[in-house]
Amino acid sequence: MQALQDLFPIFVPTLTDTMQTTNSHNETLYPHVSVDCVLLGIHDDLFCVLLTERRNAGTGQTEYKLPGSLIYETEDLDDAAYRILNETTGLKRVLLRQFRSFGSPHRTANKEDVLWLENASKMKIGRIVTVAYLALCKVRRMKISEKYSPAQWTPIDALPRLPFDHEEIIREAVKEIRLWTQIEPSIVFDYLPPLFTAAQLRHTYEIIYDKPIDVRNFHKKINAMEYVVQTEELQQGMPHRSARYYRFDKKKYNNMRAKLNTI
Amino acid sequence: MQALQDLFPIFVPTLTDTMQTTNSHNETLYPHVSVDCVLLGIHDDLFCVLLTERRNAGTGQTEYKLPGSLIYETEDLDDAAYRILNETTGLKRVLLRQFRSFGSPHRTANKEDVLWLENASKMKIGRIVTVAYLALCKVRRMKISEKYSPAQWTPIDALPRLPFDHEEIIREAVKEIRLWTQIEPSIVFDYLPPLFTAAQLRHTYEIIYDKPIDVRNFHKKINAMEYVVQTEELQQGMPHRSARYYRFDKKKYNNMRAKLNTI
Repeated sequence: MQALQDLFPIFVPTLTDTMQTTNSHNETLYPHVSVDCVLLGIHDDLFCVLLTERRNAGTGQTEYKLPGSLIYETEDLDDAAYRILNETTGLKRVLLRQFRSFGSPHRTANKEDVLWLENASKMKIGRIVTVAYLALCKVRRMKISEKYSPAQWTPIDALPRLPFDHEEIIREAVKEIRLWTQIEPSIVFDYLPPLFTAAQLRHTYEIIYDKPIDVRNFHKKINAMEYVVQTEELQQGMPHRSARYYRFDKKKYNNMRAKLNTI
Repeated sequence: MQALQDLFPIFVPTLTDTMQTTNSHNETLYPHVSVDCVLLGIHDDLFCVLLTERRNAGTGQTEYKLPGSLIYETEDLDDAAYRILNETTGLKRVLLRQFRSFGSPHRTANKEDVLWLENASKMKIGRIVTVAYLALCKVRRMKISEKYSPAQWTPIDALPRLPFDHEEIIREAVKEIRLWTQIEPSIVFDYLPPLFTAAQLRHTYEIIYDKPIDVRNFHKKINAMEYVVQTEELQQGMPHRSARYYRFDKKKYNNMRAKLNTI
């Protein structure tokens, strides 16, 4: 007798494994709302997003998606976000911030995506509103254990084909992070070592904003940033002229911030 | 024969009327996701939220709620927010910003709330995730026509009993607005006339932050705000000492902002 699985292949990625583990608590899924986690960070000098793998039952090929899943019937949204990130990547100490919900009725327009989710969740899927969470990550500090679904830091300007509206969610998340760096420029310095050159700072901005920044103008801008302080240290072992190191002066920065908001 | 309505009273607030109007387009409701609109503004020197009325079928009493409703099956979230605000208040030119989704499974713990929504929507209601939208309003400019559901600007520190988690949504919206005023202090000056006294500015902050602000310290703070500029004008017709008028210098403000974010 032909196995049922051959007739209607249920491919079970890690996501589904973990769902089933948690299903042993007799939790049922709520097939109308999902959570997706967008983790952004700089990896190998490129602005990247963390994608997990899934295997396409039809083609057998590996496909990529944001870490995400349907929520459980009795689960709050924040709890779902932390659970799903942990189940798919093992990551725990990531500060996830809800940034927007995506609810276009066209999200589930692609039948293949819906079929995958129906197989993975074993539920009939209609329209799904997804609540997207966002975190800015220090990639070097995030070790993802091999026992979890393979996860890839993928350059945001070289995304593979993604299911549902994951590409739009990532684009909006990148805009949101750029807004955060405008509101709170100190975020940018989290990406830099304590001592950094002007070129390193410029390059970090180029990566986040995805545009070239004029070197001469940038030096003027650094001078205007009172909280970016020149040090006496010079970069060592450079073939040509050694560049000077700068540091981020958090106290000066906070003073400037306080001057803008005095209340 | 007893009317069906007497056995199972369907009370039809304005919200349902408008739903039915739009239902003539053969749209059906999606009973899993709703949108709620939080309009905040200063009214009669109090920080207020716009609430609409509904009539309790059981007690016949008037109750209050945020303008909100279930979304339609084929409707995007932003479209739903603008439609619902317009249908319940007639308001059109309000810039609504999605600020957070609320999805606690306890949102629908109160059976009375669920019964009301089931009557209004004529659907079986389980758990609902709501996507909350926020707008900061100039109350004086917002005329709400009498043909809509009565709407009240209600002081946020004197809220009536509200259905679902509307009280929590309002509390979170107020926190969000306070955050906005920290990030972008210019928002506060939208509440003031072009010429204002130090007392008026202080009072506006007291209303938004809901705490008394020390007069002497506040004067020091105004001096530190380079974008709050003293004018030559004096307040007229005051019984005692006339207060000096200040103005908000948008150019200076933008320059300070640019100094913080130079990229």
